[in-house]
Amino acid sequence: MIKKGQLAWEYLENYRRQALPLLDEFFHTQKEEAKKVGKLPVESLNYFHDLCRRGKFIRGTFITLGYRLGGGTEKKKILLPSLAIEFFHTAILIHDDIMDEDNLRRGIKTAHTYFADYARKTKIPRPEHFGLSQAITLADTGFYLSWQLLLESSFPPYLKLKAGQELAKYISRLTYGQMLDITNETSLTTNLPEPAAAGETLKRILKIFRYKTAEYTGSLPLILGYILAGGEEKIEALYNYGLAFGWIFQIVDDLLGIFGQQEKLGKPLGSDLVQAKKTILVYYLLESGRQDLLNQLRELLGKETITPVDLEKAKQLFQDSAAYAKAQQLSQTYLQKGLEIIPQLSSHPTDQDLLKSFLYLVLEREK
Amino acid sequence: MIKKGQLAWEYLENYRRQALPLLDEFFHTQKEEAKKVGKLPVESLNYFHDLCRRGKFIRGTFITLGYRLGGGTEKKKILLPSLAIEFFHTAILIHDDIMDEDNLRRGIKTAHTYFADYARKTKIPRPEHFGLSQAITLADTGFYLSWQLLLESSFPPYLKLKAGQELAKYISRLTYGQMLDITNETSLTTNLPEPAAAGETLKRILKIFRYKTAEYTGSLPLILGYILAGGEEKIEALYNYGLAFGWIFQIVDDLLGIFGQQEKLGKPLGSDLVQAKKTILVYYLLESGRQDLLNQLRELLGKETITPVDLEKAKQLFQDSAAYAKAQQLSQTYLQKGLEIIPQLSSHPTDQDLLKSFLYLVLEREK
Repeated sequence: MIKKGQLAWEYLENYRRQALPLLDEFFHTQKEEAKKVGKLPVESLNYFHDLCRRGKFIRGTFITLGYRLGGGTEKKKILLPSLAIEFFHTAILIHDDIMDEDNLRRGIKTAHTYFADYARKTKIPRPEHFGLSQAITLADTGFYLSWQLLLESSFPPYLKLKAGQELAKYISRLTYGQMLDITNETSLTTNLPEPAAAGETLKRILKIFRYKTAEYTGSLPLILGYILAGGEEKIEALYNYGLAFGWIFQIVDDLLGIFGQQEKLGKPLGSDLVQAKKTILVYYLLESGRQDLLNQLRELLGKETITPVDLEKAKQLFQDSAAYAKAQQLSQTYLQKGLEIIPQLSSHPTDQDLLKSFLYLVLEREK
Repeated sequence: MIKKGQLAWEYLENYRRQALPLLDEFFHTQKEEAKKVGKLPVESLNYFHDLCRRGKFIRGTFITLGYRLGGGTEKKKILLPSLAIEFFHTAILIHDDIMDEDNLRRGIKTAHTYFADYARKTKIPRPEHFGLSQAITLADTGFYLSWQLLLESSFPPYLKLKAGQELAKYISRLTYGQMLDITNETSLTTNLPEPAAAGETLKRILKIFRYKTAEYTGSLPLILGYILAGGEEKIEALYNYGLAFGWIFQIVDDLLGIFGQQEKLGKPLGSDLVQAKKTILVYYLLESGRQDLLNQLRELLGKETITPVDLEKAKQLFQDSAAYAKAQQLSQTYLQKGLEIIPQLSSHPTDQDLLKSFLYLVLEREK
């Protein structure tokens, strides 16, 4: 049986196959630059290179998809600037992992953990602080390498500029969303909101999802590619399609964080519970008003480690409260919204199929 | 008696007077944007706005100076993009202060300290971690607002693009320098190098100074302004003049960190000792080979707090070892280098006077 996300998956794989050699080449040049400064910068780029390669490349793929929808035909030319969003994404994850105190990312150590271990091995004092400092700085490197990729690509200056303006605007807004997310996490353990405030909470959660994930995962890369192709009139529709995609992405992310498979997730299952994150699952459990289940949830949130038994308990809680089902339902709502927008984006059946397939792909991400 | 830096000082003050209203206006617009996301982003921008305003504005001034040297005449138009470097600078200082664990910056609390206190006041759990997370994110905001300022300014796309490419390249390199600096600090307390390795160490210190401070304080802003004016042929000379300026800037910074005045410094005196930074003073004390003084220095490096008595002791050590005199001598060497380049930059006596005056200004920074 061919899955509905198959077409998008092939498109993504094709992108990755073409983009990776360019990514490797860019890093090669950068490492030569870094070598002039010192060994540690090269070491740091080696880590960043590895982390970058391990990404899903959805955002980069979306830049090429947006380019295609804008009528762009130079498939090779769009590859290099498309990597800008992958670099940015990898960099912001490094900062994110510091805030979330995660140890695992994309199947390898998070940057601050990696460099703390590096310090231990090379007898640098205060390894934790060294790891933190290195990770903060390496992400900053990633931001500016991302700009290099975009601005040095071979597109007309006014198009690169327009794309750059969008990028700067979206990412500033993303950081505002990130700030909300920080308060959200840190305030949940002690302040589990009352079910009465649930409606307000859903709005708040979806707002965080929008600014922190959906816009820059879905809308932004599509729009960047579209702009680089010289497109103008479909930006709003692209924004809305991308937003629907991004919302599904985040909802599925929350589901996978509990119901997914460790080896495919690339980060520890249940880490959302450790960080007491206000995920969509937690929200729907709150909304259920089931005091007994709520109390059991409270016991799990903010624990230092989540055992397999804890994880099973959490799954049970989210199933019993219908939180799991409701979250899936919400993703279906966004699927419908996304599907409805597609005719505005293209009248070509193959493009439409591809756009549909991407919505299914993100929905079907492996559990 | 008119100081030799007087002319530059007036130029700087004039810049600040004209730029501040634009800075305020930009923040006003941004806060409206941030308000749509939430209260905390606005709160964060309020802090960033304040911190930004308290800067010395040397880098922003240098953009207008570079613009002038490139023949640019639209003095109003250059103001907005010139603030891009001030935003970047303020942002990178926020990350820097996390790494240095400083509490005071430009006379107010550092970002991570400010937000940790904010968390305590508003009963957000784990205030230190909240402060860290907020500070990391706020600096990221600053980076992207900086890009907005540059890319949205009203210069021709190809010039903004060329400036943007330079900016991205220089800042990537700056982060490599920052990485070296991190190792440098963390390795000094336990590993005070032997005097034999002193020559190697000076080269290393000057390299860190170059990438971490000199290039982006002196060369980069001059070149950015020059590019925006459409200039091309003087980039190398600007680079060299800026580098000389930047080196003096960092040497004087190291001197002021010990010999300066608390209220004018905006950060605690002696904090370089607390962080065991390999400053130029420490280097020259090492180079002196005076084992007795070295041992006394070891006692001060890495102390949790530096008392006024410690500070006096440090001053004495740096004077007795001639480190203070040698550092001043080194800054004089760079002054000469800077002065020699000036004729390549302009044949106008007023421009030449201004360029001279800036070298003296940075040398005369108040102790």
